[in-house]
Amino acid sequence: MKFIEKLNQITDKNNSVLCVGLDTDINLIPKSLHNEANPVLTFNQKIIDATKDLVCAYKLNSAFYEAQGALGWETLQETRDYIPDDIPAIIDAKRGDIGNTSKKYAQAFFEDFEFDAITLSPYMGFDAVQPFLEYEDKCAFILCLTSNKSAGDLQMHGDEPLYMHVAKLVSDWNSNGNCGLVVGATKAESLRDIRAVAPDLPILIPGIGAQGGNIELTVKYGGTPILINSSRSIIYASRNGYSTNDDFDTPAREAALKLKNDINKYRISFER
Amino acid sequence: MKFIEKLNQITDKNNSVLCVGLDTDINLIPKSLHNEANPVLTFNQKIIDATKDLVCAYKLNSAFYEAQGALGWETLQETRDYIPDDIPAIIDAKRGDIGNTSKKYAQAFFEDFEFDAITLSPYMGFDAVQPFLEYEDKCAFILCLTSNKSAGDLQMHGDEPLYMHVAKLVSDWNSNGNCGLVVGATKAESLRDIRAVAPDLPILIPGIGAQGGNIELTVKYGGTPILINSSRSIIYASRNGYSTNDDFDTPAREAALKLKNDINKYRISFER
Repeated sequence: MKFIEKLNQITDKNNSVLCVGLDTDINLIPKSLHNEANPVLTFNQKIIDATKDLVCAYKLNSAFYEAQGALGWETLQETRDYIPDDIPAIIDAKRGDIGNTSKKYAQAFFEDFEFDAITLSPYMGFDAVQPFLEYEDKCAFILCLTSNKSAGDLQMHGDEPLYMHVAKLVSDWNSNGNCGLVVGATKAESLRDIRAVAPDLPILIPGIGAQGGNIELTVKYGGTPILINSSRSIIYASRNGYSTNDDFDTPAREAALKLKNDINKYRISFER
Repeated sequence: MKFIEKLNQITDKNNSVLCVGLDTDINLIPKSLHNEANPVLTFNQKIIDATKDLVCAYKLNSAFYEAQGALGWETLQETRDYIPDDIPAIIDAKRGDIGNTSKKYAQAFFEDFEFDAITLSPYMGFDAVQPFLEYEDKCAFILCLTSNKSAGDLQMHGDEPLYMHVAKLVSDWNSNGNCGLVVGATKAESLRDIRAVAPDLPILIPGIGAQGGNIELTVKYGGTPILINSSRSIIYASRNGYSTNDDFDTPAREAALKLKNDINKYRISFER
């Protein structure tokens, strides 16, 4: 099944465009979990159990797992395996390298880990992305306009800003129908311009929640298909000052439900 | 000790600007090694033993290790640990992500693995690079102009091509004296333009060897400090058709020695 079909099916089933980011930091999870064999895995499993009827996807940020070395790599695999089959699992890896290296990454993330989608950096151009596009049922989300403060350093370069150039390029790369874009929610007007030149691409939108993007404008300008990602404001919803409470999964569910509903308030009039 | 001092010391000691890339592919190493507990590690150790008096650095491409999952992660660590203390170890990871994620990568690669330097993608701008720059004795090599066919897709964008914009930006980011650039040998004239706006930055230059960059022009336009990387044409020097010979380390040494000498022919007149 194509990624986009899988995404559409779960979006319909769960009536949700919310993607939960499992950017799990061992230092931010409840102390009580530290007695578990694998604290991060247990945390992730409970978050998945608590939110799997509310989401359209999960996104795992590979840095948080790599920071734990070989154990982290195993946690990444076991977390991925725990995600229900009908929910897309995205690895947020932001890779991009020459062809033979990209081929290695594509094998690792698509074949070994069996992720459904990956985020990639476009800096090296088409041939860095191409090995991922050979997997027709997977999806490559290419960084276009990011939500961080310094995004403009490169992305605004040129008379036609680089991010618009990237949006057009990626539309051209989409001959297998398996490309997507990453566009930060903190730049809602630019999201509108990007959607105009990439009418069919799924857009993964971080920047809601901790980073402060506006939900109404994001839904309005994002169109469809979109995946609105939130990580910290959901998985650490129970966090109060320096500690995450032992009862973290109920607050995570409440935060996910609230965000899903906040998004759906504006989605109604723009639905597929 | 600052990275640049460590680099200068080994460059002088070994009279070499050659960086050997340990992009080791389990499928390309001699069949006889498959009886070893960890074939890739054994291969890397023998390559290091055979070349450590000929190089100014080793570069490990993280994709090749990640493709092997948790075992690959261990191989990465053990290979890194095997590199002599006075030779810089570079992790070619091409990472670039928002601040809290970059912080995780910086911890993983600089603190846990103890690499001396890393390659990074500039697409997300300064705040994606900044967490790496806090490690004053390490070095962040930022992708500027790459050696692959599609490099121009983004890197040539704008009236002032993006790669020149990046070269200037990175010069501005260099207040701790720990930035470098990655510039492909396949674009020698552009290397000259980049060196003109970044006179002090170490430049890591892939694209010699398998990719066909010109040695004379690379040395001439690269100036100092440079690190000229070669991977496949050295580590697989014994490869003949589909198999790598059991005696792979002697041919690797010969290939490294020849390339070092070919480079030094042109270095004499441009030495520090």
